[in-house]
Amino acid sequence: MFESVALGRSYSKKEFAAIEPDLRVKLFEAQRGVIENGVPVAVIIAGVDTAGRGETANMLSEWMDAKGLRNHTFWFETDEEKMRPYAWRFWRTFPSGGETAVYFGGWYGNAIRTLKTGDAKAEENFDRLMHRWVRLEKTLTASGTAVIKIWLHISKKVFKQRIKERLKNHGEIRFTPYDKNTPEDYDDLTRAAARAIRITDRQEAPWHLIDAEDPNYRNAAVAAVITSAMNNAVRIKKNSLKIEKSEPEPFEPSPEITALDKIDLSPSVSHEEYKKEMEKLGGDIRALTYKAYKKGISSTLVFEGWDAAGKGGAIRRLSSSIDARINRVIPVSAPTDEELAHNYLWRFWRHIPMAGFVTVYDRSWYGRVLVERVDRFAAPEDWGRAYAEINDFEEQLTEGGNVLVKFWLHISEEEQLKRFKEREETPWKRYKITKDDWHNREKRKEYLKAADEMFRRTGTDVAPWHIIPAEDKKYARITVMKIYKEALEKALKNSRKK
Amino acid sequence: MFESVALGRSYSKKEFAAIEPDLRVKLFEAQRGVIENGVPVAVIIAGVDTAGRGETANMLSEWMDAKGLRNHTFWFETDEEKMRPYAWRFWRTFPSGGETAVYFGGWYGNAIRTLKTGDAKAEENFDRLMHRWVRLEKTLTASGTAVIKIWLHISKKVFKQRIKERLKNHGEIRFTPYDKNTPEDYDDLTRAAARAIRITDRQEAPWHLIDAEDPNYRNAAVAAVITSAMNNAVRIKKNSLKIEKSEPEPFEPSPEITALDKIDLSPSVSHEEYKKEMEKLGGDIRALTYKAYKKGISSTLVFEGWDAAGKGGAIRRLSSSIDARINRVIPVSAPTDEELAHNYLWRFWRHIPMAGFVTVYDRSWYGRVLVERVDRFAAPEDWGRAYAEINDFEEQLTEGGNVLVKFWLHISEEEQLKRFKEREETPWKRYKITKDDWHNREKRKEYLKAADEMFRRTGTDVAPWHIIPAEDKKYARITVMKIYKEALEKALKNSRKK
Repeated sequence: MFESVALGRSYSKKEFAAIEPDLRVKLFEAQRGVIENGVPVAVIIAGVDTAGRGETANMLSEWMDAKGLRNHTFWFETDEEKMRPYAWRFWRTFPSGGETAVYFGGWYGNAIRTLKTGDAKAEENFDRLMHRWVRLEKTLTASGTAVIKIWLHISKKVFKQRIKERLKNHGEIRFTPYDKNTPEDYDDLTRAAARAIRITDRQEAPWHLIDAEDPNYRNAAVAAVITSAMNNAVRIKKNSLKIEKSEPEPFEPSPEITALDKIDLSPSVSHEEYKKEMEKLGGDIRALTYKAYKKGISSTLVFEGWDAAGKGGAIRRLSSSIDARINRVIPVSAPTDEELAHNYLWRFWRHIPMAGFVTVYDRSWYGRVLVERVDRFAAPEDWGRAYAEINDFEEQLTEGGNVLVKFWLHISEEEQLKRFKEREETPWKRYKITKDDWHNREKRKEYLKAADEMFRRTGTDVAPWHIIPAEDKKYARITVMKIYKEALEKALKNSRKK
Repeated sequence: MFESVALGRSYSKKEFAAIEPDLRVKLFEAQRGVIENGVPVAVIIAGVDTAGRGETANMLSEWMDAKGLRNHTFWFETDEEKMRPYAWRFWRTFPSGGETAVYFGGWYGNAIRTLKTGDAKAEENFDRLMHRWVRLEKTLTASGTAVIKIWLHISKKVFKQRIKERLKNHGEIRFTPYDKNTPEDYDDLTRAAARAIRITDRQEAPWHLIDAEDPNYRNAAVAAVITSAMNNAVRIKKNSLKIEKSEPEPFEPSPEITALDKIDLSPSVSHEEYKKEMEKLGGDIRALTYKAYKKGISSTLVFEGWDAAGKGGAIRRLSSSIDARINRVIPVSAPTDEELAHNYLWRFWRHIPMAGFVTVYDRSWYGRVLVERVDRFAAPEDWGRAYAEINDFEEQLTEGGNVLVKFWLHISEEEQLKRFKEREETPWKRYKITKDDWHNREKRKEYLKAADEMFRRTGTDVAPWHIIPAEDKKYARITVMKIYKEALEKALKNSRKK
């Protein structure tokens, strides 16, 4: 694929001087468009050493408005990165609307640099990772981010020549102190790059292969590519505002039976049994979370369910059995404006636990396919793709043996009414009941359907749903604790095997 | 000071059961007040080992609403913390309005645990640090954060007994794997704590010494202290909204001569000289910033000055001489809502560079004593204390030999008018000129006075101001580069001496 790239395209100083002003103005204006329309832009600049990645970024810094322009390198892994799923380091840098993030190598750099082509197992892992990036980029572009991927290419001959010059002029090849001072293997690297590009070159986020042997041509080509992609993203954004979103599905309360209709709500426990079990389970969870902490196994717990189903109470009981120093509860409410300016998953990535720690989400990313679907805050094309996005996200949360447990607390319509009324009558519980709760209650049938689809599409092998009969609060609390306890035991057992 | 603390106060199970419901409701309601009124709350829980810090936090997690409640430990330093000023780790965790952050040991834990009392030099450093925390807490409380400091105390006898029990029951003393498994020295620790408490016990953020030998009494006392401090902070917040802010100072254009009136605006350079100097300085800065990167010396550059004084252009020229991978430009514009919900310095702490990196602020924290003062967005008591807060902040930025350079780009009223008009006439510069610019221009006299006071009060030995004659853009750009170059050389030279 590179044969047609490094062909010695170039601009003389004079030629370049003639086109430069126009290129700059156009790039600058494209960026204005991006800022004014709140479009996030992610630019990946990749290439072999000496291809001019740094110089290209310097050119962009000079030509563009510094407002919202950020460069990101991933030279070294900080502890905070090491202790979380791999993609966390990228998520935390994703641009918000109007910002342009420039990535050196991006999510490709490290993988391309370390792949031993020819090793079947390594290639398989590499391909799996590349497919993950395809899905990541799809998630980003679908929510309006322009993803611009640039590979700066030079021929082997030019590469060797430049390495030689660097050694002569500076005594060293690379700037970053995190790499060895030996030249890259040009053939290995370009083979790996070709493989990565083949898999990840998609319509929504295509690769741009640029002849980088002549700096003038390179700068001109990069500027033109970014200008055009920015203008395109702005056009899409404007059109999407003009176009009617597809009609919401006709949300007829469907006659079919949903998963929740089949749940037996009768289980209950006596007060004595509850006390006894709680004490036992509390001690076990305390001990197990200590062990998990020392082993670096993190836990992510998700609580969903009907309003007044007892999520808060269950979370408090569970939390009181975990050392407060390693546990964090994230009650999910309205997003901040920084959160709104990002992909909807960003605000959950923000809080995922470091190795050994626990994060409890009181409501979660499932809002996308529940309330946002039912109340039509999100268009069908938006919540429709959320299932796959969520499965991807959760797959990453469970990697390395981390624990992910998802609970749906289930109560009947009658029990809910009883609890709403109780809350209204208790002075210090009154704040807990709002107009929204009554509104949601009216939509129970729609929620049943949405929850049913959610269970089906996100109840995966790595992250199954646990539907908890919660008509009896005590039974629900104990069951939650039991399930988490078993999940911890399993994770610890597996970690010993390794 | 501890003699009157651990006196064996206790509640029997029955006594505690009788008061617990009331304590819980009151604490819960106080937290509601804090949430509804947007008051940030920082609780520090300190004490010797086995005093029950973890259990206290667990009690709070159980009694309080999880909404906005966060626990923070500083067991280990992550790379990202190590590579920034010490207080950064705390700043990034500070609660926003309505949130309650619970700190284990807070900014005291580590210092108290490591002080060798009796060592004069160590004590001096310790005292200096304690005075820094006094100023930090003053900064927080002045902007409305409730800072609640709790020392849980137990007698030496009880301490020894509990350590013995822990060893018997668990085979180890401490939960965190980051400490050695030997008991703390009770006497050392309480001596250091007494010293810390003496220095940092201030009206705005007092210490609460609590008898922690009986868990019931401890829980009751902690809950009562927090309840009362929260209610108090809410009361203050409500009153401050009712009370008229002190009358803004009568802002008569003062007849006195200000610092800027004395600046000779005539310096200029020829085009040839500019080209030559730029090339030379650019190369020097590139090499010096590489060296600084390798040595872990970070740079913070601040650009202030009149609208249209050429800040943007100077920043672009300077930035193009620094590898874009280690340089970040932060243009300061309207704060996000997350930023608004914190102390005004929080949004600058967010972006301070890691060791070796460069951050360029295009406008800065000086907005507090410039535009916020002149346009009366901040009350005199708010911008009035900003000088000291800023000096504290900058002292921390320069520690460890890091480079901090502050520029004021100065132009005459006439030159500014000329540039405004030029901008209005150039299509792709038009966005750069807004109503605000004309408004600010009318207030030049007020700005002169505010800038004058700013130069006087924040032009410190560690962070002097550089007022740059910018009537000639080329001269200004070169001068900025020269000054930064010299600052880097000096820092590198000093680092070699160490």
